[in-house]
Amino acid sequence: MDSTATSPAIDETHAPGRTSWVAGASNHGDFPVQNLPLGIFSPPGGTPRPGTAIGDHILDLAMLADLLPPDVGPALAQTTLNSLFALPRAARLALRRRLSSLLSDDRHRGAVEPALRRADACELHLPAAIGDYSDFYVGIHHATNVGTLFRPDNPLLPNYKHVPIGYHGRASSVRPSGVPVVRPNGQRKAPDAAEPAFGPSQRIDYELELGVWIGPGNALGTPIPIASAADHIAGFCLLNDWSARDFQAWEYQPLGPFLAKNFQTTISPWVVTAEALAPFRRAQPARPAGDPRPLPYLWDEADQQAGALDLELEVSLLTGKMRAAGAPPHRLSCGPASNMYWTVAQIVAHHASGGCNLSPGDLLGTGTISAPDREGFGSLLEITRGGSDPVTLPNGEIRRFVEDGDEVLLSARARRDGHVAIGFGACRAMLLPALHFGAAGQI
Amino acid sequence: MDSTATSPAIDETHAPGRTSWVAGASNHGDFPVQNLPLGIFSPPGGTPRPGTAIGDHILDLAMLADLLPPDVGPALAQTTLNSLFALPRAARLALRRRLSSLLSDDRHRGAVEPALRRADACELHLPAAIGDYSDFYVGIHHATNVGTLFRPDNPLLPNYKHVPIGYHGRASSVRPSGVPVVRPNGQRKAPDAAEPAFGPSQRIDYELELGVWIGPGNALGTPIPIASAADHIAGFCLLNDWSARDFQAWEYQPLGPFLAKNFQTTISPWVVTAEALAPFRRAQPARPAGDPRPLPYLWDEADQQAGALDLELEVSLLTGKMRAAGAPPHRLSCGPASNMYWTVAQIVAHHASGGCNLSPGDLLGTGTISAPDREGFGSLLEITRGGSDPVTLPNGEIRRFVEDGDEVLLSARARRDGHVAIGFGACRAMLLPALHFGAAGQI
Repeated sequence: MDSTATSPAIDETHAPGRTSWVAGASNHGDFPVQNLPLGIFSPPGGTPRPGTAIGDHILDLAMLADLLPPDVGPALAQTTLNSLFALPRAARLALRRRLSSLLSDDRHRGAVEPALRRADACELHLPAAIGDYSDFYVGIHHATNVGTLFRPDNPLLPNYKHVPIGYHGRASSVRPSGVPVVRPNGQRKAPDAAEPAFGPSQRIDYELELGVWIGPGNALGTPIPIASAADHIAGFCLLNDWSARDFQAWEYQPLGPFLAKNFQTTISPWVVTAEALAPFRRAQPARPAGDPRPLPYLWDEADQQAGALDLELEVSLLTGKMRAAGAPPHRLSCGPASNMYWTVAQIVAHHASGGCNLSPGDLLGTGTISAPDREGFGSLLEITRGGSDPVTLPNGEIRRFVEDGDEVLLSARARRDGHVAIGFGACRAMLLPALHFGAAGQI
Repeated sequence: MDSTATSPAIDETHAPGRTSWVAGASNHGDFPVQNLPLGIFSPPGGTPRPGTAIGDHILDLAMLADLLPPDVGPALAQTTLNSLFALPRAARLALRRRLSSLLSDDRHRGAVEPALRRADACELHLPAAIGDYSDFYVGIHHATNVGTLFRPDNPLLPNYKHVPIGYHGRASSVRPSGVPVVRPNGQRKAPDAAEPAFGPSQRIDYELELGVWIGPGNALGTPIPIASAADHIAGFCLLNDWSARDFQAWEYQPLGPFLAKNFQTTISPWVVTAEALAPFRRAQPARPAGDPRPLPYLWDEADQQAGALDLELEVSLLTGKMRAAGAPPHRLSCGPASNMYWTVAQIVAHHASGGCNLSPGDLLGTGTISAPDREGFGSLLEITRGGSDPVTLPNGEIRRFVEDGDEVLLSARARRDGHVAIGFGACRAMLLPALHFGAAGQI
């Protein structure tokens, strides 16, 4: 087995001494020259096209195609990254190396500078046309916390430590950072109510997740062995799996969450590539003593050695009152991404193990990543214990769940001594009031 | 409210006296001139294009574009029907009327005949690029039967009669009739086993469902009122929701079926339009006394008057031995589509009620449609009571679940006195043996 399949190599593109000639692309922001995330943007008055973030700028890759490896050229002429994701990892790596050189070597400045746009003047789009979106449940502390609320007698089900539990989500309602979320209407039934009622959700929550972008796919009927799972992973993003907890509790049995989760999912639009994260790979934490060893199709020693990421995840809240007062967002939680019971390679191998075909541009969510303690819980459901233990914000407001006008902000930062830290960019969205449904069920 | 929104009108295209000049397009097959289903086909050596089935032939709609309504022209130049589905119902109706006239009036024969292809020489494809596929659970007898097997104490959950239960399925693995299904590998755990095992499913089942093709979509955040749900429905197909029952039992809690259902879904490739089914609409059966009245967003009198279909559904099995002996398929079950607790308009309105956006070419499955009695059960799980009461076939073979080499065939026929019956065409697929996974989890 080629161990690089599991763990992309650290090379000169990660060198801490490498800096960019682009003004403002210092080593302190999310997008130093060590990152080079890929995305789809529109410049002012222009159409969507591939770009890479560098400091406060976006490099227009289509404009620069003549200077880039010829095998990525056709993919750069597209309005989504699906074609780029479909290329073998070697092609993405060659693109990264070339971009790193173009943006760090001052001799290229004259040729490259005309293709730079100020990021704040551009619009960011979804990076890919998402064929299918699947969501997992790898945050074992989250699974335990939520299980305790939904099934006090039976928080962690017997399959959890054997099966990387996942389900299919809604691809059509995934939106990039910045697109507001309308509070959904739906059915809910309080435990003590005789009948369900229809109306605006009263328990809107966020869920802090990592998103995984699928690169090259597999043919229907042909599994992906875990040792080559990394060849199928193009990159990562942040993902807020907005959830209506009241709808979820009423609808989820026996077929799982549906309307509780499909009204919108917010992602950070930059794809932080697997290659960019190479320096931040670390061993997957050992399973607690007594936990079962995963079945062979889910077990790969190299993946265990490098299948986790040194990544800090954070959630902040900005209420309407705070915004009006010019206050900064308030941090609700912070914790490491290593609180995943299953690695990304394990969820990819599991997903395809029965022959299900993944395609370039498919999106996987990890499920909510919570730390063991309240400071690192990845949802309000957990932080407020189902609303019974509210959060008091610095301005005295209290929150059980997300309220209209609140903005939820996720962020991620990969850090390790001796390496330049990189970030994921913004993943934020504001909750807007529900539409009014009339008594006759009309809008 | 415009009642035609719920119930497409019967017009001259349904006239029983209307016949086609196309040889073999008699009134006895699935595709008389009263049907005119839409699909995507490739003629020998040609590329995929839109067509309509007439008798044993397919009419190449792109070749005929000059004779068809100009507003459908651009949609007919595509390799999927998504653009056609996106058009308002009036455009599809105009196309139907024109096709009916071209194919029944002998004066058009000279102009139209060059665009006819023999169906048996053509390949049929998926009719649309499926953005999202959702599956429901409206067959109340199926829900009760399966509930009894999975949860003997609690077969029909408290939400069932209030919520049209649904979940997201896998769009990428939907395949048209004729594409074989590879038996999936996966995790299963017998109730008495200490640990789960990984290997080929030992309980492969079919599920008899109707598929619903979404026409014009709705914007994210904007529900579809039930009274206009019909405007968003382009047509229908048969759908076999292949299921690995052993995987399902082990994985489905708490997030629902995943690998148990995503290895393949087989559909009939012809889209039988809502307009073609107009003569076969009937009142939705009254809810049993004591059942709750649906919430207002799910209730529309016009839908109750015409929301069900006079449609006979049938499942047959052809084993390898039967095929070798030249025996015909054996009918396993037969029952009416009216055994749906929720109408199609109700599932569409529910799906969009929280703002989830449906798109042209999205596919909804109704869920398994079973009659109350064994002769009409829509899955082997129900027919054989979880494998404990096997079926004996005419040649003496017995079946608990589907075996390698078996072919499962679904069919549907809409019938009513005074009208020409129409069918859905083939929905069949053969089960192939599993791939071998080595001890190390490699293929």
